[in-house]
Amino acid sequence: MAKDMTLLWGAGSSPCWRVMITLEEKNLQGYNQKRFYFEKMEHKSAEVMAMNPRSQLPAFKHGDKILNESYAAILYLEDQFKSQGNKLIPDPPAEKAMMYQRMMEGNTFQQKLAEALYYNYLVPEGEMHDSALKRRQEALTAELKLWDGYMKKVGDGYMAGKSFSLADAAIFPIFAYVFYYCPQCEARYPNMAAYYNRLKDRPSIKATWPPARFENPEGM
Amino acid sequence: MAKDMTLLWGAGSSPCWRVMITLEEKNLQGYNQKRFYFEKMEHKSAEVMAMNPRSQLPAFKHGDKILNESYAAILYLEDQFKSQGNKLIPDPPAEKAMMYQRMMEGNTFQQKLAEALYYNYLVPEGEMHDSALKRRQEALTAELKLWDGYMKKVGDGYMAGKSFSLADAAIFPIFAYVFYYCPQCEARYPNMAAYYNRLKDRPSIKATWPPARFENPEGM
Repeated sequence: MAKDMTLLWGAGSSPCWRVMITLEEKNLQGYNQKRFYFEKMEHKSAEVMAMNPRSQLPAFKHGDKILNESYAAILYLEDQFKSQGNKLIPDPPAEKAMMYQRMMEGNTFQQKLAEALYYNYLVPEGEMHDSALKRRQEALTAELKLWDGYMKKVGDGYMAGKSFSLADAAIFPIFAYVFYYCPQCEARYPNMAAYYNRLKDRPSIKATWPPARFENPEGM
Repeated sequence: MAKDMTLLWGAGSSPCWRVMITLEEKNLQGYNQKRFYFEKMEHKSAEVMAMNPRSQLPAFKHGDKILNESYAAILYLEDQFKSQGNKLIPDPPAEKAMMYQRMMEGNTFQQKLAEALYYNYLVPEGEMHDSALKRRQEALTAELKLWDGYMKKVGDGYMAGKSFSLADAAIFPIFAYVFYYCPQCEARYPNMAAYYNRLKDRPSIKATWPPARFENPEGM
């Protein structure tokens, strides 16, 4: 049980989901948690602000240690609970290097995805340009091709090698996001789709699958 | 000596600089290195592309292990060379949590800095709006206030506690960038300035200070 942990989260957020997957993998169930609705702007509430001054989700703490950045949270959790649940940082240097590299590339992937998907939401009406949206979509397409190439090399393995690692916890939610908003992308990016379909029933992923994202996507 | 390492870098890049600081701290001098000029678009060259498919700097490898993401590189270097040079991940859980948290917040800081500073460079002429630039500048100002508050709490210490850590290697270059482009910001953000001035003569930082950034800033 993880009664000394608190997670404030929102459905449809890869950063939130990766923390939840990691908590499951480390057998850290039973943490205090509260869901906030992005579509109601609840992440801008005083309750979130009190833990995360940027008003973003996730907001996470372990005791009095604040770890609002999802990558900070998952690196910390693996470090503090090394011998509990699944080991999420591989020992072989080549796998470890790949794990860190793919994890951090996830930031770029996620940013490009958000910039293209949420263009209408992020950019005020008077500042919109078809050319800008097209450029963002092209950047996302290039990113997706890159990841499909990575996944081709992965074959039947995981993101960083033979075992599930923090890189999978970090990146799987972004893939799930892509295929949720773009089901036809499964055919366009078959290697990403093969990886996604191989992992989607993993217990830590199934247990944390964000429900409302599939009921109310238009809220995003 | 670190003859099995190669770093492709550009002056004026916080991600490049943080890798160089970390290499110094770990006594990993003597690596192969080559400078590329952003202002000549050299980061788009085939030589960079061969190591980093996103055509970004840094591009870094250790043997055949590719670590182009600066955070991936510095986490990996500390892990692989734990007992060499300075220890860069503190043991106490509270300091470790703070280190990961501040490091990862650096991504947001750097993005907001780039979006405001390079607006004219990033956005094509026909898509520019004063309102968009103003919003980016306001977002950067809020970010700077946040970091100044963090630095007030740091007092005479380092980013994550009593010793220099990866968080300092990661964030110092962004502070240096801010004060280089905005000398008047030292008065506006006195706690950031105090931290900056306390660290700027540290050997690893002095040894890697990017020279051309101070000769040719208009190239950026």
